[in-house]
Amino acid sequence: MLLMNGPGLRNDEHKDIDTFKLCMAESGFQIKDFLERSSDKVPKFATATCAAGAAAGSFVVPPLRPDYLSELSPASLLAPGFVRSRTVLAEEKGETSSQPAAGARIIDGKSVAAQIRAEIRSQVDDLKSQHGTTPGLAVVLVGNRTDSSTYVRMKKRAADEVGFYSVDRTFPESVTEDQLLACVHELNTDPKVHGILVQLPLPQHINEARVLEAIQVDKDVDGFSAQNIGNLCLRGGKPPLALPCTPAGCIELLQRSEIEVSGKEAVVIGRSNIVGMPVAHLLQSMDATVTVCHSRSKDLAAHVRRADIVIAAIGRAEMVPGDWIKPGATVIDVGVNSKPAPESKKGYKLCGDVDFDGAVKVAGAITPVPGGVGPMTIAMLLKNTVNLARHAQGLPRLPLRRKATGT
Amino acid sequence: MLLMNGPGLRNDEHKDIDTFKLCMAESGFQIKDFLERSSDKVPKFATATCAAGAAAGSFVVPPLRPDYLSELSPASLLAPGFVRSRTVLAEEKGETSSQPAAGARIIDGKSVAAQIRAEIRSQVDDLKSQHGTTPGLAVVLVGNRTDSSTYVRMKKRAADEVGFYSVDRTFPESVTEDQLLACVHELNTDPKVHGILVQLPLPQHINEARVLEAIQVDKDVDGFSAQNIGNLCLRGGKPPLALPCTPAGCIELLQRSEIEVSGKEAVVIGRSNIVGMPVAHLLQSMDATVTVCHSRSKDLAAHVRRADIVIAAIGRAEMVPGDWIKPGATVIDVGVNSKPAPESKKGYKLCGDVDFDGAVKVAGAITPVPGGVGPMTIAMLLKNTVNLARHAQGLPRLPLRRKATGT
Repeated sequence: MLLMNGPGLRNDEHKDIDTFKLCMAESGFQIKDFLERSSDKVPKFATATCAAGAAAGSFVVPPLRPDYLSELSPASLLAPGFVRSRTVLAEEKGETSSQPAAGARIIDGKSVAAQIRAEIRSQVDDLKSQHGTTPGLAVVLVGNRTDSSTYVRMKKRAADEVGFYSVDRTFPESVTEDQLLACVHELNTDPKVHGILVQLPLPQHINEARVLEAIQVDKDVDGFSAQNIGNLCLRGGKPPLALPCTPAGCIELLQRSEIEVSGKEAVVIGRSNIVGMPVAHLLQSMDATVTVCHSRSKDLAAHVRRADIVIAAIGRAEMVPGDWIKPGATVIDVGVNSKPAPESKKGYKLCGDVDFDGAVKVAGAITPVPGGVGPMTIAMLLKNTVNLARHAQGLPRLPLRRKATGT
Repeated sequence: MLLMNGPGLRNDEHKDIDTFKLCMAESGFQIKDFLERSSDKVPKFATATCAAGAAAGSFVVPPLRPDYLSELSPASLLAPGFVRSRTVLAEEKGETSSQPAAGARIIDGKSVAAQIRAEIRSQVDDLKSQHGTTPGLAVVLVGNRTDSSTYVRMKKRAADEVGFYSVDRTFPESVTEDQLLACVHELNTDPKVHGILVQLPLPQHINEARVLEAIQVDKDVDGFSAQNIGNLCLRGGKPPLALPCTPAGCIELLQRSEIEVSGKEAVVIGRSNIVGMPVAHLLQSMDATVTVCHSRSKDLAAHVRRADIVIAAIGRAEMVPGDWIKPGATVIDVGVNSKPAPESKKGYKLCGDVDFDGAVKVAGAITPVPGGVGPMTIAMLLKNTVNLARHAQGLPRLPLRRKATGT
């Protein structure tokens, strides 16, 4: 639960409350409580104190500048390296602190994301001062889906925060495919744009694949093009120019949490193009022995039980119970699902693909939902943009992952 | 063991004996015996009789035409659908037939390859008569490595046999990279060429990756380009224009042997770009639950023991003992290794990555080495060429594999 006070919001910024809520949810806070305790339903900022933190440790956000909305990312709320203990989490959830303190180390995605953003800001400063170039990210948004608009605002805000050059292209739902393709071609030829992001889904009448394929591979900031995926899967060749953001975020969490991957058994649940498939290849490239499970897999429990590392990315609320987890295993939970919560005002709350309360008792390390993998995705989008800008300048890219050494 | 008689070889054809030997080895015959029993060391053809077959069944090759060298492929030696029994194999190996007859079904690669070649020949006839186009395969060979020359001759002969248009480009070891690139560019623009194959390895002074990348994706007959590999790995998008030949051959063997893949546990030993990685994706696209093991994997035995389908592609002689195989499992052995055989004239004989004699007792089905996966590779090269020719004509391609249905 988060208590705040400060200068308040201007009226024209009220619309951004939903974005703020999303950021805070990503940061692991219960938004419902927060809004309920804001007497006037308008959040006020400047300092932020975690109520639970008063007992378990507290943190303060530096006073915000007038353009504080650009500061409302999870990254700016916690200092790098701050890892919330299980006790804090339990208290945030309103659980009593009489529970045993033993349990998994919590892998704090927002803290790691904050660290990466800080590194990226420094990289951007370096690119500007040493090489006279500013990483440019173009975001194409079609229609007015609330979720898409919110994500796009978050992405643009994060890009502003690290000093990127931003281009927005917003189209009505009625845009034609040719208009979108023309937009992509224009961005392809704009030397100030290094990454092009087309927010999905696109309206039904647009051929999504055709629009995405129009993005030049050296501006494919999502890393989803066949060529980038191919180079990700091929060993020993050209590295991909960009990695899919969520899988790359999972790997950063493992590496920055000093989780050993080489020689370990990794089980990936889900084989999607955006998470399961690329993360399996990344783990394999780091010498894990990887099994990919999916809807047709038999005896999923047996696979999970032998895993040293579980990546859950199947999108079903708490489908992996705690007793499937091997004692000491690392659990990276990519799922963001809602589950019924009658006590909540909304009637539901967010949860992952893994039963956190069960798994935290046996795992060695685990990511919470929200606040685990979620905040990493945008951080990796920023990293991809910096890498594409470096590539355009003929500079070596930041390393994407530790490579395999075996055969 | 194979006994032959017939019109004999012209002097200028003696150099092709090594190719013939390779073909025969691929067909599962012991070349040593064959050469020893040819009193004049020059094979004579026309009819071929398997000595062991006299007891277990026999077959006769139709009298060869004067251009019989083009007939010397494994495909022409056995009728489609002919599956050698374990007894025949044992007798060919000089083992007594007093062994129990029970054991795995032998998946006969040369028979399946023959069937595919027959289908391809018919496809080529159709393309010629209905669409006025002849599939064209260009083969680029550098230097005079015996193995490369032999493989190239086999590939060209197989291409001739099915009626392809063939282009040969042969360069001395001293060729420059620019010369090779110019050759590839010329072949890229030749409308009669649908597939370009650069025989590897190239000499040290040539950047192999650069030469391969110069091949246009729609002429990448080996299916190794990042774009083809990416499209192989991505679900639901564009299918790759060509599949890597050996992995595709493994899948054809499974499908044509009516081995159920969906929902099965598949363990791939080896994660190479040319076999392990693509075959794992193909199996996953057919709904298998796939684990990829490699040099850093721990407890390989445990993985293999739970596999319904084992793909062994690690290149170590008989490293998988028979008692690792789950009873009833299917074993596809991609390895081609030599092992000491003091009783043989050469002092060694060919073997796979799996201990065949041990595995055949417990497996449900198994490929022999030689005569299993080997003959499939060239057959799939031909299939890729036909598909690229069809693609160039705007025709739908032959199906590459049965697709997954789950999520």
